[in-house]
Amino acid sequence: MFFASDNAGPVHPQIMNRLAQANTGHAMPYGNDPIMDEVRDAIRTAFEAPEAAVYLVATGTAANALALACYTQPWQTIFCSVTSHIHEDECNAPEFYAGAAKLTVVETDDKMTPEALTKAIEKHPEGNVHGAQRGPVSITQVTERGSIHSLEELNALTAVAKSYDLPVHLDGARFANALVALGCTPAEMTWKAGVDVVSFGGTKNGCMGVEAVVFFDPAKAWEFELRRKRGAHLFSKHRFLSAQMAGYMQDDLWKTTAALANDNARHLADGLRAAGATLLHKPDANMIFAKWPRRIHQKLHDAGAKYYVMDGPLEGDDPNEPLSARLVCDWSIGTEAIDQFLSYF
Amino acid sequence: MFFASDNAGPVHPQIMNRLAQANTGHAMPYGNDPIMDEVRDAIRTAFEAPEAAVYLVATGTAANALALACYTQPWQTIFCSVTSHIHEDECNAPEFYAGAAKLTVVETDDKMTPEALTKAIEKHPEGNVHGAQRGPVSITQVTERGSIHSLEELNALTAVAKSYDLPVHLDGARFANALVALGCTPAEMTWKAGVDVVSFGGTKNGCMGVEAVVFFDPAKAWEFELRRKRGAHLFSKHRFLSAQMAGYMQDDLWKTTAALANDNARHLADGLRAAGATLLHKPDANMIFAKWPRRIHQKLHDAGAKYYVMDGPLEGDDPNEPLSARLVCDWSIGTEAIDQFLSYF
Amino acid sequence: MFFASDNAGPVHPQIMNRLAQANTGHAMPYGNDPIMDEVRDAIRTAFEAPEAAVYLVATGTAANALALACYTQPWQTIFCSVTSHIHEDECNAPEFYAGAAKLTVVETDDKMTPEALTKAIEKHPEGNVHGAQRGPVSITQVTERGSIHSLEELNALTAVAKSYDLPVHLDGARFANALVALGCTPAEMTWKAGVDVVSFGGTKNGCMGVEAVVFFDPAKAWEFELRRKRGAHLFSKHRFLSAQMAGYMQDDLWKTTAALANDNARHLADGLRAAGATLLHKPDANMIFAKWPRRIHQKLHDAGAKYYVMDGPLEGDDPNEPLSARLVCDWSIGTEAIDQFLSYF
Amino acid sequence: MFFASDNAGPVHPQIMNRLAQANTGHAMPYGNDPIMDEVRDAIRTAFEAPEAAVYLVATGTAANALALACYTQPWQTIFCSVTSHIHEDECNAPEFYAGAAKLTVVETDDKMTPEALTKAIEKHPEGNVHGAQRGPVSITQVTERGSIHSLEELNALTAVAKSYDLPVHLDGARFANALVALGCTPAEMTWKAGVDVVSFGGTKNGCMGVEAVVFFDPAKAWEFELRRKRGAHLFSKHRFLSAQMAGYMQDDLWKTTAALANDNARHLADGLRAAGATLLHKPDANMIFAKWPRRIHQKLHDAGAKYYVMDGPLEGDDPNEPLSARLVCDWSIGTEAIDQFLSYF
Repeated sequence: MFFASDNAGPVHPQIMNRLAQANTGHAMPYGNDPIMDEVRDAIRTAFEAPEAAVYLVATGTAANALALACYTQPWQTIFCSVTSHIHEDECNAPEFYAGAAKLTVVETDDKMTPEALTKAIEKHPEGNVHGAQRGPVSITQVTERGSIHSLEELNALTAVAKSYDLPVHLDGARFANALVALGCTPAEMTWKAGVDVVSFGGTKNGCMGVEAVVFFDPAKAWEFELRRKRGAHLFSKHRFLSAQMAGYMQDDLWKTTAALANDNARHLADGLRAAGATLLHKPDANMIFAKWPRRIHQKLHDAGAKYYVMDGPLEGDDPNEPLSARLVCDWSIGTEAIDQFLSYF
Repeated sequence: MFFASDNAGPVHPQIMNRLAQANTGHAMPYGNDPIMDEVRDAIRTAFEAPEAAVYLVATGTAANALALACYTQPWQTIFCSVTSHIHEDECNAPEFYAGAAKLTVVETDDKMTPEALTKAIEKHPEGNVHGAQRGPVSITQVTERGSIHSLEELNALTAVAKSYDLPVHLDGARFANALVALGCTPAEMTWKAGVDVVSFGGTKNGCMGVEAVVFFDPAKAWEFELRRKRGAHLFSKHRFLSAQMAGYMQDDLWKTTAALANDNARHLADGLRAAGATLLHKPDANMIFAKWPRRIHQKLHDAGAKYYVMDGPLEGDDPNEPLSARLVCDWSIGTEAIDQFLSYF
Repeated sequence: MFFASDNAGPVHPQIMNRLAQANTGHAMPYGNDPIMDEVRDAIRTAFEAPEAAVYLVATGTAANALALACYTQPWQTIFCSVTSHIHEDECNAPEFYAGAAKLTVVETDDKMTPEALTKAIEKHPEGNVHGAQRGPVSITQVTERGSIHSLEELNALTAVAKSYDLPVHLDGARFANALVALGCTPAEMTWKAGVDVVSFGGTKNGCMGVEAVVFFDPAKAWEFELRRKRGAHLFSKHRFLSAQMAGYMQDDLWKTTAALANDNARHLADGLRAAGATLLHKPDANMIFAKWPRRIHQKLHDAGAKYYVMDGPLEGDDPNEPLSARLVCDWSIGTEAIDQFLSYF
Repeated sequence: MFFASDNAGPVHPQIMNRLAQANTGHAMPYGNDPIMDEVRDAIRTAFEAPEAAVYLVATGTAANALALACYTQPWQTIFCSVTSHIHEDECNAPEFYAGAAKLTVVETDDKMTPEALTKAIEKHPEGNVHGAQRGPVSITQVTERGSIHSLEELNALTAVAKSYDLPVHLDGARFANALVALGCTPAEMTWKAGVDVVSFGGTKNGCMGVEAVVFFDPAKAWEFELRRKRGAHLFSKHRFLSAQMAGYMQDDLWKTTAALANDNARHLADGLRAAGATLLHKPDANMIFAKWPRRIHQKLHDAGAKYYVMDGPLEGDDPNEPLSARLVCDWSIGTEAIDQFLSYF
């Protein structure tokens, strides 16, 4: 009954197999391994972007921080949502990599709106040397509250960015979960929607620890390579990053695992609703925020269920006080564990 | 015939097995996995340092840069050798992580001497606000020229550092190779010799991508955790770093693979000497620098041998001009490939 | 009719005289001039802080950024108000000097409240490695909206900071204006109120370009000296910073000029109210925010009056639409210019 | 008898007068003062560079660090001489402003040679992601040992830089001293010689605290303005920087004071030679390095003479042991003080 995060599950067997296969003899280090050529091709094909520059790193924070740094000057500010991972969960890594740039929160509850984004940008007038200068817009898809931007919403946000000539980054730690939920193509969710660079997540969706950074404009390629090395994120035995991503792309495994995770979440959400819990955000992908009485939390806790209780202590006087929780399903959790979880309601 | 580096070989089966074993169910992320407890214990035991703070990262550059940053203020300079990896091969990562600190080269050919170190430190008088301030001393064991500091040499260097109250970092990317060559204990080569923090390498010696940072003074623990996260080096699926290191420590595999690598190098060095090549540095561990005529380089190259030619182009007029080369042996290379290599002389 | 800022007026004659007097022969550079001894004594006496470390820099942004950097780790966040100069008007200088730390806005309109500060701090739970860590609290006195914290308000804010063991910085670019308005002592407005370091402004209040940074705990002294030098803010001909500050402290000139500025603002505020303008913030010190019809703005503009119109444009269809403006009075402006300004209403 | 530095003398009366004249009424802040227009014109005219971007800062370290930062990426290294101010005397300010870039010392005693520069650049092969990348070349004219590069030497160095497509910075803290010694034009010593940006010093040559940064390619203008603000080096009461520089440029005062300083040094050097002291570097400008017996140092010291003794303690057993000293003459020192100094020999 592990719903604490999708970053704690096992690696998919297909990926483990590719790691084992890759482990023969010597291979050129630092990204010059032949498996990386396969990965580059696979990602370019998937994104319909034959010129894209494709790189691998081992953590999502590295992907975000390095990608953003390529588009941010130290005197600029990055526009992001209040719930964004780069703002809340990266311990100033984006600021560090961008040379002490700022992050500006676009004031909405979760997903940015074009109006709120415009307002945030307008607060930083051009030509004013005293304030932080306008920098890139970073959109998180799926958001950290489990919401998905429709293609229409995405295009509306990037249109604002483009109208100010600002680059757009997509934090796709859960890119696959959004994609299968929307039923669109990778191109539609990225460069066709005005995205310049995407963090294409693997770790949360069945890999061991690998994320791709995909630049649709290859002009940033060499700068990224230098930033990655300087950030100490260039792997010598790089083939083991490549092998993970190769296994992930092979036969669209990435879509399969994402669909599994989303299905698991839907099953759990349906069960929670049926059990009388209140759902707090629309569970678009594989993340659920919901509220139910303390006494049920306590039973679940005693039974070993793992998830975050967002407000208030588990211990408390009122057994019926509703406490909200975050539940994340990964591809591996399965309906059995979910049903077991629901059985405590 | 792969002698380009020890960072390009396969992962040892014992480590692959531990990765496979670790891949069951969910585990707490970010270093809270139970395998990390095992690793911590194993390293503390190996180093006879029950209080040591032990952390894992995936690259040697990350280990060095993060470890040094914990001991360096941005207005200080790190004293290192002219051949050190931190100075030559990390694309300003140590400077980046230490907040724009400087590196000062101690002027010797390879290994620092106490005299040269003293001179370098004395050039930065205390209380002079205009110059870079004295920072930590970083020693590389094995050096990037394949030399090993004897325990006596190590103690002499740290004595200089301590006399100025400066902390000492040991870049142990090839820690195991030095240790088995010296036949000493990990404690003797680190804290008993005055080392405050060590980058304990795994990647070059049979792991997939893992290095431990070991602080003998646990006071730096929390700062390291924050720096690691901020540097984007904290793994969510951390158990797969832990599993590698657990497999590496188990039954002293790390010493076994290092001894294999050193034996391979000795076999190669003996063969080169017998074949008339000139050895340029004393090959203490698993790295050899040697010189032989261009025409033999050309034959080896045509036969697919991989290694770095240090001076001059492989193509050239004089077939007998001696060109120097770097040859690195890893644990897996084996005498067969070495003898094949030697057969071209 | 110059009301654009108090940073654009002339230097007070008493300060010009001290500069002229200082200009004889040679003086030891870099802060070792004898006038600096006089300044240190004068400021220690004024603040009743015989142990305080006192330094001079030439700009307010340097004072703020260097002072904060001494209390901020790169992985922390500085708590400040939404209108604070460090957040809005320093082009990421605080982030730069603090090694890429973050700024967190405490959500109120202008002055922080203890409740809002507590909420902002609580959003950064201790021991959570993923988020920015809690850093210093920076309070602006006078605020950038012209408001003054009463001693009670100040003590309530620092009590919150202290309850979390966080240091407190006071941005006193208009310290003197606040002090004479409150009628308190420098000690009461700083260390007695829990302030650890203050940017004690001179430039806006009659100096040429000098600010003091006063640390009530002298333990930060050497770090500040190194940070100042590294930031390129250590003057060689330092006596000309000292002379300004010496002239400023002499015979309490700093209180005299501040009182003049506040009186000018009061005269202007009274006149505006009498003329039917709407005052937007309580004008506690020397800054006024007020609203009046566009047509009067236009007349003033044509007559050469200088001040910022906040919600323009100056040109517009409706001559009676009220537009708000910021008016700042310095010590030198005088009632004549103010009455001339008011004559256009 | 003050020979410790040229940064400790008085401000020239012509400059004090301009400061006094500038002190009337209000002036637009932050570089928008009309005197800055005059300064810009004067410098463009002097340098025969009608398009040059001209900015003022208050310290030489700020001029160097900000100018270099505009031409340096964080993963690059700046090539400089072993005696350069940026390497030895700026407490890591260039590294700080350039985002943690490196400095690489070109190995000569003082002035770079084209051969040594080429060698230093070649050690950083293009396309090698592991090492620091090639960055700008910074030349110091006058060097910190008092030597001047002839125009031929300067052109030879910049030719090397240009052959690698590297930008060139000139640290001209003593620009005027070199210029009058060479008898050339500012254009000949800068853009005609391949210099891209120059720190044009004022402080050491009769100003209070002002240096100009002159970009011959105005494309860097806005970036410099943002870097200056972010570095906290943008003055609000900027007219008082402008007034200094205006006074300095007026009627070629800058050449007059430099000629005075150089003449003073020549007088002192002649006297020292006559008195039997050994001159260590060729005293091309206003700085002298010489050696004479300890007992004379002691007499001079007792008589209040101020200068740096470079080697060994003033106190010592052997009264005849020669100790070397650095003596710097500014424009104001005059022959009387020099002759008094020489009378102790």
